[in-house]
Amino acid sequence: MRDFSQDHRWLSINTATIRKSKGVELPLPQIIEACVERDIRAISPWRDQVAAAGLPLISRLVKQHGLELSGYCRGGMFTATDAGGLQAAHDDNRRAVDEARELNAKCLVLVVGALPGALAGKAAHKNLALARDQVTDGIAQLLEYARSAEMPLAIEPLHPMYAADRACINTMEQALDVCDDLDPGKTGALGVAVDVYHVWWDPKLQAQIERAGKERLLAFHVCDWLTPTTDMLNDRGMMGDGVIYIPQIRRWVEAQGFAGYSEVEIFSAANWWQQEHGETLDTCIQRHRSAV
Amino acid sequence: MRDFSQDHRWLSINTATIRKSKGVELPLPQIIEACVERDIRAISPWRDQVAAAGLPLISRLVKQHGLELSGYCRGGMFTATDAGGLQAAHDDNRRAVDEARELNAKCLVLVVGALPGALAGKAAHKNLALARDQVTDGIAQLLEYARSAEMPLAIEPLHPMYAADRACINTMEQALDVCDDLDPGKTGALGVAVDVYHVWWDPKLQAQIERAGKERLLAFHVCDWLTPTTDMLNDRGMMGDGVIYIPQIRRWVEAQGFAGYSEVEIFSAANWWQQEHGETLDTCIQRHRSAV
Repeated sequence: MRDFSQDHRWLSINTATIRKSKGVELPLPQIIEACVERDIRAISPWRDQVAAAGLPLISRLVKQHGLELSGYCRGGMFTATDAGGLQAAHDDNRRAVDEARELNAKCLVLVVGALPGALAGKAAHKNLALARDQVTDGIAQLLEYARSAEMPLAIEPLHPMYAADRACINTMEQALDVCDDLDPGKTGALGVAVDVYHVWWDPKLQAQIERAGKERLLAFHVCDWLTPTTDMLNDRGMMGDGVIYIPQIRRWVEAQGFAGYSEVEIFSAANWWQQEHGETLDTCIQRHRSAV
Repeated sequence: MRDFSQDHRWLSINTATIRKSKGVELPLPQIIEACVERDIRAISPWRDQVAAAGLPLISRLVKQHGLELSGYCRGGMFTATDAGGLQAAHDDNRRAVDEARELNAKCLVLVVGALPGALAGKAAHKNLALARDQVTDGIAQLLEYARSAEMPLAIEPLHPMYAADRACINTMEQALDVCDDLDPGKTGALGVAVDVYHVWWDPKLQAQIERAGKERLLAFHVCDWLTPTTDMLNDRGMMGDGVIYIPQIRRWVEAQGFAGYSEVEIFSAANWWQQEHGETLDTCIQRHRSAV
């Protein structure tokens, strides 16, 4: 396993981590500036942040600073109640591929969606199997376009507590079944984003990481699981503050040949988003060295 | 599948569901009285409620009213940081078996425990594999005693969001692996409690219910998953108010020959525990008919 203790060469910052500074929304150009100041060499930005600043400006800043993108967040949300909704999702996902390509991202991360309407509080139906079929179909369709754009798609299995409203792909095994189905040749066009927050609990995690292999391990995200967790979405912990044995999972991933960035993605409404963003970044750097 | 729409013959009330009435703790004798008044024929009481009222009184009430126990809540919590802690857990679990036997419960439900200390907010370690080994050892040891007492043990796989602090057995597959390991003959002494809240998201659920078969399906618990869920422990929904396709899961379970009670177990601090308990029970009866 690579030694992270001496530098932060392989640290990437998912820009949601400092989406806010002292509770105030922080524009992406300032996030980039704070990363560059600290010799952070990679980021993974969110589409809404890019849109707010304008894709041309972000593209220019990324090139100017020689930043890499460990991923682009995010495509997905493939489910809908009718053909129009499915088509709209597909169109939007093609635009996400285009943006990811413009920014030269390593992959487009897919949060695949779940029961239509559930995120807004009222699910249109309870047929999880149907949602899963729509997701597989949606990925299949997008994959053709993504291949032509040479943009790998990384399915992110989300924690089962998001199965209703955010993603109905909830384990590595399930994600890899989709990969085997749609890309049996392991071409590198389709794989997974392994976020320790979502998969740490899985008794089959090591086996499924081995199954994925280097070709399908497209991204590695870190944060920590706090006890107690007071909010299901926005109470993620800084690496080292929770119960996830992160170095062990990184060891498994790197044993397969993964040699990319370790991307810090922390949603923390009550804690880190209330801190000054520079201090949060400094803590990320420190914990990247000591706890990842 | 059995028709529940005409009566509530197969409704059981897990007594946590009306642990409070209008926010005030409700003693178990009053819970029993409210169930009996409504011709509810089965309950599943919690140990702390039994202890507060006294086992002899509860045993007498149960016999007097001809109540059945669809289960007894709960044994488990097998993990510890030292031999003394493991022994204390074992001793306590033997007492739970004794109590379950005195009350003639169908099974002792096991919430197996996870990282020691995590429930109190500070995990003693992050070694989930070790916790899982301790759990398997603890069940193996208890199984001998439970066999001699003729009390089936029902492992309850808990939702992965409880993997850190409550139970490190988080899928049906994992629970059944333990069953196969410790009771390969499927004697009926060891099985699972299927709670839809914990397992509804699992893409392998149907297959694992089929794998379990009648011999290992010892209990069936219902409630619902709300969107949004505002508390990870105490925001469970009434059947029909959430996204779980409960009748489908019941169909799978009954297809294996399960013919026991459908046990309503709702932890709801902000909603149902604030209602008058009789109204909550009436709603349980109604939803048992219409949504289970």
